[in-house]
Amino acid sequence: MENMNEIRLFCPATIANVACGFDVLGVCLDTVGDEMLIRKSPIKGIRITKITGANLPLETTKNVAGVAAQSLLDSLECPYGFEIEIYKKIKAGSGIGSSAASAAGAVFGINHLLGSPYTQTQLIAFAMQGEALASGAPHADNVAPALMGGFTLVRSYTPLDVLSLPSPEHLFATVIHPQIEVKTADARAVLKQQIPLAKAIQQWGNLGGLVSGLYEKDYDLIARSLEDVIVEPIRSVLIPGFKEVKEAALKQGALGSGISGSGPSIFALSKGKEQAIAVGEAMQRVYTPMGVAFDIHISRINSEGIKIL
Amino acid sequence: MENMNEIRLFCPATIANVACGFDVLGVCLDTVGDEMLIRKSPIKGIRITKITGANLPLETTKNVAGVAAQSLLDSLECPYGFEIEIYKKIKAGSGIGSSAASAAGAVFGINHLLGSPYTQTQLIAFAMQGEALASGAPHADNVAPALMGGFTLVRSYTPLDVLSLPSPEHLFATVIHPQIEVKTADARAVLKQQIPLAKAIQQWGNLGGLVSGLYEKDYDLIARSLEDVIVEPIRSVLIPGFKEVKEAALKQGALGSGISGSGPSIFALSKGKEQAIAVGEAMQRVYTPMGVAFDIHISRINSEGIKIL
Repeated sequence: MENMNEIRLFCPATIANVACGFDVLGVCLDTVGDEMLIRKSPIKGIRITKITGANLPLETTKNVAGVAAQSLLDSLECPYGFEIEIYKKIKAGSGIGSSAASAAGAVFGINHLLGSPYTQTQLIAFAMQGEALASGAPHADNVAPALMGGFTLVRSYTPLDVLSLPSPEHLFATVIHPQIEVKTADARAVLKQQIPLAKAIQQWGNLGGLVSGLYEKDYDLIARSLEDVIVEPIRSVLIPGFKEVKEAALKQGALGSGISGSGPSIFALSKGKEQAIAVGEAMQRVYTPMGVAFDIHISRINSEGIKIL
Repeated sequence: MENMNEIRLFCPATIANVACGFDVLGVCLDTVGDEMLIRKSPIKGIRITKITGANLPLETTKNVAGVAAQSLLDSLECPYGFEIEIYKKIKAGSGIGSSAASAAGAVFGINHLLGSPYTQTQLIAFAMQGEALASGAPHADNVAPALMGGFTLVRSYTPLDVLSLPSPEHLFATVIHPQIEVKTADARAVLKQQIPLAKAIQQWGNLGGLVSGLYEKDYDLIARSLEDVIVEPIRSVLIPGFKEVKEAALKQGALGSGISGSGPSIFALSKGKEQAIAVGEAMQRVYTPMGVAFDIHISRINSEGIKIL
């Protein structure tokens, strides 16, 4: 491993804030993601040498991959540096972890080229530095599933404690990304800092049910538990058509549906690929007559996370 | 089964509000519980014919076992009635499900004598009627573990949805019951109806971690997750010595510790019986010099719930 000079990666999109798991539960996708090329360089430090597919800054300190990579590099002595090429396919601001894919890919690749000195939890901590640049807060709920794959639960930030949860094999995600801008700052601003205890109890009852459902491969329990009574009722008003899209997904047989990250993407989880496709078609039928452009992704749960190509 | 005329039961004590699982998570004990005798009678209706060990009303409508039993009986046509004898060993107001044991035992026994027409969830719903008499609210977090055994999670009340979670075999509970009165009404009154979103996120992260820890038999994860950042900081002021008892338990190696139900009992969970005994001794060493009388119970997790004797 230490003799490798470059590595090419698939850096997957992720869904954060999975229903009742606001701020703690994320899941990794398989069919949508960026590619990254990371190469050792005799020049010390981190240089972003190429970005395609998005208009993002090449300056290390202004790029999430650069900041994440630099934070890793700052933690050790390294006689050489790294060049990073980013081939973006995940749209920025779509709510499926675009910045997380870049931050996670950068630290995963460099760690690999260095002979894997760091644990996954340490890599999550470095990648979070990139997320801090992107959103102002060093959150882990997208970088964790990108790095670890499957469902991840951020149990605690101090100290950082991230758990890997099982992914039942027939579980598929549908994500529709309406081409609407929802600013993360707005999505944060609408949140209430005080919430009713009764709703919080419902939410943690559902999260407990969802975790149990994942272990038991109990799709019906997963369906019953996929409900967010705290954040979705407030944030969904920022996403035109949200209610109709969610209703269409559930009517079509989705196990559950909600806002992906802070939106505007809307996810649904289904049992089986055919069901996930049909759910996607139902979601589309809401946005098409509204004249809202959208992307749609159907994906099994990616249980590996970032892949070496 | 239908030809049985009477049944004698062990009706176990239970811990509700297990740390981060406030209002949803309960667990069943093995070494402390009441006995009940339930007998078919030619006289229709429910009669409480004997109570020992506690000064409780014999009138059906004023007794939790009576009310729970009557609610079951009201739901079907039955040509005969039932007599109930209660041999209380769980002290009322101790915070380890004294009323729940009676309510659960009554409905379990009658259901059994009727040939088991009802599901566990239906029995929980009947037993909750007894709890409503005892505390003013028809809660399920003690009757569910009493009826189902092990750890139970009340995911939802509307509709009632109660899950059984795994109980790692080396998990033991220590419960210390200081002879102090904490009125349930006071314990409820001090609760804040609005809580900070940030604390709620911590709480559901911990509950997710705890459920995962139970499935994984990961005692270290169970320990990290056994924390209540919402209710315990407020309610514990009603229990003299709480902080010292909890600290002593943790210092002695308990996985976690908290208020049992609405107190005043304090529970700890430990890995192994020896550890649970040592934790109990450490807890006692706090109350003894304070001159507070107490009972102490050491118990494995009772994975069966109510037992037929």
